[in-house]
Amino acid sequence: ASPSEPIRATLFPGDGIGPEIAESVKQVFNAAGVPIEWEEHFVGDKVDPRTESLLTWESLESVRRNGVGLKGPMATPIGKGHRSLNLTLRKELGLYANVRPCYSLPGYKTRYDGVNLVTIRENTEGEYSGLEHQVVRGVVESLKIITRQASLRVAEYAFHYAKTNGRQRVSAIHKANIMRKTDGLFLKCCREVAEKYPEITYEEVIIDNCCMMLVKNPTLFDVLVMPNLYGDIISDLCAGLIGGLGLTPSCNIGEGGIALAEAVHGSAPDIAGKNLANPTALLLSSVMMLRHLKLSDKADRIHNAILSTIAEGNYRTVDLGGTSSTTDFTKAVCDHL
Amino acid sequence: ASPSEPIRATLFPGDGIGPEIAESVKQVFNAAGVPIEWEEHFVGDKVDPRTESLLTWESLESVRRNGVGLKGPMATPIGKGHRSLNLTLRKELGLYANVRPCYSLPGYKTRYDGVNLVTIRENTEGEYSGLEHQVVRGVVESLKIITRQASLRVAEYAFHYAKTNGRQRVSAIHKANIMRKTDGLFLKCCREVAEKYPEITYEEVIIDNCCMMLVKNPTLFDVLVMPNLYGDIISDLCAGLIGGLGLTPSCNIGEGGIALAEAVHGSAPDIAGKNLANPTALLLSSVMMLRHLKLSDKADRIHNAILSTIAEGNYRTVDLGGTSSTTDFTKAVCDHL
Ligand SMILES: CC(C)[C@H](C(=O)O)[C@@H](O)C(=O)O
Ligand SMILES: CC(C)[C@H](C(=O)O)[C@@H](O)C(=O)O
Repeated sequence: ASPSEPIRATLFPGDGIGPEIAESVKQVFNAAGVPIEWEEHFVGDKVDPRTESLLTWESLESVRRNGVGLKGPMATPIGKGHRSLNLTLRKELGLYANVRPCYSLPGYKTRYDGVNLVTIRENTEGEYSGLEHQVVRGVVESLKIITRQASLRVAEYAFHYAKTNGRQRVSAIHKANIMRKTDGLFLKCCREVAEKYPEITYEEVIIDNCCMMLVKNPTLFDVLVMPNLYGDIISDLCAGLIGGLGLTPSCNIGEGGIALAEAVHGSAPDIAGKNLANPTALLLSSVMMLRHLKLSDKADRIHNAILSTIAEGNYRTVDLGGTSSTTDFTKAVCDHL
Repeated sequence: ASPSEPIRATLFPGDGIGPEIAESVKQVFNAAGVPIEWEEHFVGDKVDPRTESLLTWESLESVRRNGVGLKGPMATPIGKGHRSLNLTLRKELGLYANVRPCYSLPGYKTRYDGVNLVTIRENTEGEYSGLEHQVVRGVVESLKIITRQASLRVAEYAFHYAKTNGRQRVSAIHKANIMRKTDGLFLKCCREVAEKYPEITYEEVIIDNCCMMLVKNPTLFDVLVMPNLYGDIISDLCAGLIGGLGLTPSCNIGEGGIALAEAVHGSAPDIAGKNLANPTALLLSSVMMLRHLKLSDKADRIHNAILSTIAEGNYRTVDLGGTSSTTDFTKAVCDHL
């Protein structure tokens, strides 16, 4: 795209605090002169009251056409036969890898220093197959499905990510001592891919041991790749090490190179509309989107502005023990650009 | 039993460092005048070279007859068609609940203070069913089985434990937003049991969120009850918070009131036979066995002696950054009785 042609990207502001933190991203992008034109789509609590639909065909098409998107938190109404909207998006857009960098933020103190790791989660199968049934009364089963195709694909992504991001090591997380066939297949695929990346150290770590090591010394890890549920668990654990989901970005990689960046925290309905939400996770996610678009200069500038604002510590939202509003914090980031 | 009749208990010293740390327990029990007569059974790397058996019928019978036992670490030879010995024992003895108290040890500093929680893990089913198969080439599945019977049994144990141990709250850990049927049934059973314990607060926490909360503020938790794999993961995570598996006791509760206490750390073949192993986890596990036998005075005395030795800090084994041998540490505990 020539400098005069803006890049189109899809924006799902989401529910609860979603619109406020999405507004924050728009303002920062404007201030930084990012050449992006947003295609905003309302998704969530009943797009259409007549059909009770949560998701329009147009919103999916928008991401497919643009190839990139940014997504706020989405609440799924419980018990109405709706599948989680997050899962539906993963499925429809073939979002096979969920990438979550997790690093200590200078100036925001937690119990851990120098954390700098990336979890890469298989995002389409495993324990999330949705295949469950009652065998007899009082006996139910869930199927965990692992395929060679999805495992190779996410392993390939993890090693490629490690290589192109100057990372040294990939750890495959598993419980193959118990689930010998499923997690065994996952490991086998990781090993096959590892062969092709001799410059990257490859290791295998059992999930229980991994969690213990993470809380004892998270700096032992670099890139972690794993099946769906382990990724769900470990990425949240890691977020906790550096301060919580309000501070960690994420990006989903899909078929045909689609990238849907998202804040993985909740929609926080209790503080929605009160100008209290912390936009950091969505802002950092938007930086991941910019990197995907190879807008590295803009990405660096915005990333540095966010980190400086946090490091200075004059503008902290309530979740981080401060008193700043969403708009105060956003303005501070813009001032740091 | 009258004071003159010793209580019989089974001892499986186990592999690697097992015999050394088991010796430590025997010495401390002798020094404290614990009226226990050990029935020691060799279990593990080929009891009988002719059959390649790892486990004798007599050793299982011993636990069944005595109703109590203590177990060191057991290594399972990999890839010889042997199922994990740990799993075999759980299955054969119907060890349905794995109880792991986890508390900060005064004097042994980690990043966390004041941790004081207990994980109670369903120990017989879930992701450990062993039911796995290939659907077609490149597609494998594992079955997670949840039954009403096993869920009620472990929930009942958890609430009873909370009540009889002065605990206030039970948190059921799950992923029922994804595994609606299996984890859903587990939660349903927990709710049913919770009804019978109005004095205990009951809550439900999603596993990913639970792990984040645990690393941010573990003092938020009291008793946690959960399906097998979540228990495996979370108990190790918790052990990491207070220093590792070398410091955390565990006890398995089985059918007919059997109690098999065990150190859940590995057999550490690299330091086996070198008088370097830390016997703390097995010693604290033996205290759990004594409590089960209602030998509370002996249990308290030994527990306090272990804690004082650690608190003083003059005798630390290598894993804790010290230079003491297993026998030095053991002697120090005896001196503190
Ligand atoms: C909301 C829930 C379905 C989701 C998941 O389990 O994947 C969330 O925890 C996440 O990590 O994105
Ligand atoms: C050794 C392994 C089979 C076992 C398990 O997964 O249960 C261990 O991690 C444990 O926690 O006792």
